Amino acid sequence: MKTLIRMAAVCLTAATWIPAQAQFAKPEDAVKYRKASYTVMATHFGRLGAMANGRTPYDAKAAAENAELVVALAKLPWAAFGEGTDKGDTRAKPEVWKEAAKFKEASDKMQAEVGKLNVAAKAGNVEALKAAFGPAAASCKACHDNFRKD
Amino acid sequence: MKTLIRMAAVCLTAATWIPAQAQFAKPEDAVKYRKASYTVMATHFGRLGAMANGRTPYDAKAAAENAELVVALAKLPWAAFGEGTDKGDTRAKPEVWKEAAKFKEASDKMQAEVGKLNVAAKAGNVEALKAAFGPAAASCKACHDNFRKD
Repeated sequence: MKTLIRMAAVCLTAATWIPAQAQFAKPEDAVKYRKASYTVMATHFGRLGAMANGRTPYDAKAAAENAELVVALAKLPWAAFGEGTDKGDTRAKPEVWKEAAKFKEASDKMQAEVGKLNVAAKAGNVEALKAAFGPAAASCKACHDNFRKD
Repeated sequence: MKTLIRMAAVCLTAATWIPAQAQFAKPEDAVKYRKASYTVMATHFGRLGAMANGRTPYDAKAAAENAELVVALAKLPWAAFGEGTDKGDTRAKPEVWKEAAKFKEASDKMQAEVGKLNVAAKAGNVEALKAAFGPAAASCKACHDNFRKD
């Protein structure tokens, strides 16, 4: 019974989590889309990192704009890990699908951390940005380590 | 004198228009980024088109969300057409740089049209969406026709 309830919970989670698969005509389109969303997100995340680490001057307006984009983009890739998207031009490990609950947890964690980063970026001081950037970067790395091939 | 003033105006425009070139470590990074931003934008634009053309059911909330993403993404690629980005894995025609003022005009037009599309998408009815989608799609096509290789 417990197992049944757990299975039902997993199915419900998956159903609400991957709602947009039908919106990609082909699995390749989904793979291309999710990679593109990571590319754009990583660019803007990298700009926040450059400010947090002092490689570029701190600019409060740019920090807020970049963080806003990161938050918006961080919501996108997850809907594009549907059926058939484990193949082709992707570095996603089989664990994305085999350990779907763990992958979802990692993606939720990342979104929570970039949410905090967005709040920090809008605080208008570099110390807040520095404090929030590390945990956000760690949440990216944790997912890469477990779910992405080198 | 008139020519000098015009040249100065063009330089000023270019300087404000391409502010972020220094933010890409290599031209290849800029090319990859701009293509990725178009990919994500086109996906969400396509979802609006599917609703506008009746291929998928109209969903006011999804329309608003997709349009919001399109507007945010429509601002991004232009900063990634800086020096050295005319080569490599790109279909951008030399006209992007040779006719920079025309390219800027086309990009401004597109952003204005997707701005209107965003307003229409939030009106909460499919007729508004239909009316705004055509001109927005035409502004994409105009730029592709003139500035992108087949």
